[in-house]
Amino acid sequence: MKDQISAWIANEKQEGIQLLQKMVQLESEQGHEERVQLLVANKLKEWGMDVDVWYPDEKEFLEHPYFCATRTDFSKSPNVATVLKGTGGGRSIVLNGHVDVVPPGDVKQWSDHPYSGDIRDGKLYGRGATDMKGGNLCLLLALKCLKELQVPLKGDVIFHSVMEEESGGAGTLAAILRGYTGDAALIPEPTNLKIFPSQQGSMWFRIHVYGRAAHGGTRYEGVSALEKATTVITALQNLEKKRNDAITDPLYEKIPIPLPINLGKIQGGEWPSSVPDHVIIEGRIGVAPTESLDDVRAELEEWIEQIEDDWLRQHPPTVEWFGAQWLPGAIPTHHELMNILSATYKHVRGSEPVVEASPWGTDGGLLTAVGHTPSLVFGPGVTSVAHYPDEYIELDAVFEATEIIIGTIIAWCE
Amino acid sequence: MKDQISAWIANEKQEGIQLLQKMVQLESEQGHEERVQLLVANKLKEWGMDVDVWYPDEKEFLEHPYFCATRTDFSKSPNVATVLKGTGGGRSIVLNGHVDVVPPGDVKQWSDHPYSGDIRDGKLYGRGATDMKGGNLCLLLALKCLKELQVPLKGDVIFHSVMEEESGGAGTLAAILRGYTGDAALIPEPTNLKIFPSQQGSMWFRIHVYGRAAHGGTRYEGVSALEKATTVITALQNLEKKRNDAITDPLYEKIPIPLPINLGKIQGGEWPSSVPDHVIIEGRIGVAPTESLDDVRAELEEWIEQIEDDWLRQHPPTVEWFGAQWLPGAIPTHHELMNILSATYKHVRGSEPVVEASPWGTDGGLLTAVGHTPSLVFGPGVTSVAHYPDEYIELDAVFEATEIIIGTIIAWCE
Repeated sequence: MKDQISAWIANEKQEGIQLLQKMVQLESEQGHEERVQLLVANKLKEWGMDVDVWYPDEKEFLEHPYFCATRTDFSKSPNVATVLKGTGGGRSIVLNGHVDVVPPGDVKQWSDHPYSGDIRDGKLYGRGATDMKGGNLCLLLALKCLKELQVPLKGDVIFHSVMEEESGGAGTLAAILRGYTGDAALIPEPTNLKIFPSQQGSMWFRIHVYGRAAHGGTRYEGVSALEKATTVITALQNLEKKRNDAITDPLYEKIPIPLPINLGKIQGGEWPSSVPDHVIIEGRIGVAPTESLDDVRAELEEWIEQIEDDWLRQHPPTVEWFGAQWLPGAIPTHHELMNILSATYKHVRGSEPVVEASPWGTDGGLLTAVGHTPSLVFGPGVTSVAHYPDEYIELDAVFEATEIIIGTIIAWCE
Repeated sequence: MKDQISAWIANEKQEGIQLLQKMVQLESEQGHEERVQLLVANKLKEWGMDVDVWYPDEKEFLEHPYFCATRTDFSKSPNVATVLKGTGGGRSIVLNGHVDVVPPGDVKQWSDHPYSGDIRDGKLYGRGATDMKGGNLCLLLALKCLKELQVPLKGDVIFHSVMEEESGGAGTLAAILRGYTGDAALIPEPTNLKIFPSQQGSMWFRIHVYGRAAHGGTRYEGVSALEKATTVITALQNLEKKRNDAITDPLYEKIPIPLPINLGKIQGGEWPSSVPDHVIIEGRIGVAPTESLDDVRAELEEWIEQIEDDWLRQHPPTVEWFGAQWLPGAIPTHHELMNILSATYKHVRGSEPVVEASPWGTDGGLLTAVGHTPSLVFGPGVTSVAHYPDEYIELDAVFEATEIIIGTIIAWCE
């Protein structure tokens, strides 16, 4: 069977690469996922599958306690799902990938058009190549392979192509609520072919720091919200250090900062020669699988309250929790899907896989907590290029991951 | 003569207050100076003066090396000037006031309409009351008084009512280029009746700080432009300290920070969970009368270049000099106009005047450097309310300043 699959993949490479190129070229920032989703749906139909394409708008979805998005209008952001029915009596698996991508950022830092899809030295370039259209291609090829080779499976293979992962997983929530859950899930986010049983959760926050305005020429008559913001920034850096110093889980051993606090955005002041009276900092804080979102929210808020600064004590910064949140998730390291994936990995690559905690949130948190589908993350590509200029994915890794994923599905579902 | 002037002013108060109210009520943010300028021009004509009203658009003006404005269209922003001709053989004086006002800002922070002109407890409220329509009223009343009392003067009294002071002095530049210069100048900006022989210049700058984007969950793979911006902010704080520690001029003795570097605006990053790769800081740097703008530009740029930080050395921040600039200005403290103003002050108020350096730029810098007209600043009102909500001016101070200014003009020009 292994040889047959290897041969099938070798034969499919050229077409797969072209599909990935198209998927990258169809820019799919949030709110603009429709074109790439329709491409995915059409491919699945072309391969003979029944496809469910829907635009989530149900009350149950929009009012769900874990609904978290910067918008409520998904009329240009369909979800796509398909189920490869098993013969019955086997374990089902969910394969989940998101199509939304983060904005390209400063385009001048890109060597090429951010959505070029160009291939150089075996790497395909473009925003979303690694995060995570490369991984999505693995899933699509796996479905096509299982279908074409008519591999007999007992359990169902349930595929999600979802929108809106990058700000909190509304797409996956909608898929769960529509019934697309299973006995376990695999998400091919870019782990560089490592296996991530634990996935870091995270939340976005917005901190308002207040000052007192004054003319810049007599700035000593005011209080600069920007100066006070740098005090808050230092406090957040210290909080990050404290939280990470306390981590003992060996899965985090090789990660420089297991639970980062990232400050992603700052904005304040209106006029170069006025003292700014209001600065806003936006960021994300990592949440460990052992923590609740509420506990982490309280810890950060208290930490800010306790900054030793007279002005800040008297004019306390306010903290909002807005936009995205990702629940942390974890599958036991001895779970059967972990064992099967590790064995298949070894079979294909001839070496033991690296098992680590993920440094970021994935939709696995929602699948675990809301969909009762324990999830692991395993995919091609390296996060060091995700969210960067010149994002790319190594094509060889995509096909290696595809082979391991197909083997894993067969062993799990048969 | 003093008694006669005092009596004239006492008699004129009611009408003067009404004129000031109208001047404040005619909102005159930049680009909207026409209505108040035509009011001023009509008053001067009513009082029997020849008035020059013009809309600067000459090439010489727009291409002048010290032309500095955020626009080139002044078709709704006339300048007004008039000259009270002397009999000859005396010293001339320029009286300069600007009619443009800064925007009211957050109107919710005002107790009343920002342009109400309401009077409560001897204070007239409204944007521009202190900066500097109160001072302008002093000049208008001085002209009217000299005219009505037919005070014999040898030197000319040259009056400018200019636009566009608040972003760099294009109005005064136009008045200079049209020939309205003199042997010395008095500008009644709000000094709280202190005398400011030195006026701080200032310039706006914009610093771009670069980082390297990365996913927030693996932020250690990127370089935060925000973290690097805090390093730049600290460097700018140190530069401010260094520059101010070096000041020995006794005029600056009582000013906490004689030459402030104000950081007025910050903006950077696009996404809470990405490492920001670009942060922009905007601010203003004070320039001493002993310094040239070029020297200060070079000092700041070199200071930024020399920050000890490997990343910043390899990815140097860029500095832009944009928007407004005000030339510094100074008249010698022993200048005859200083002596006359001090003596008149003492004569009217019975005490010695406070002599200090101004913490902000005025059009005196341009008058000195381009118009070869040494300038001092003396006027009613306090800067702690200028550019703030609930700006007001104490009416008594306006009439006290008027009396001192009239006496000074007479002694200087006779």
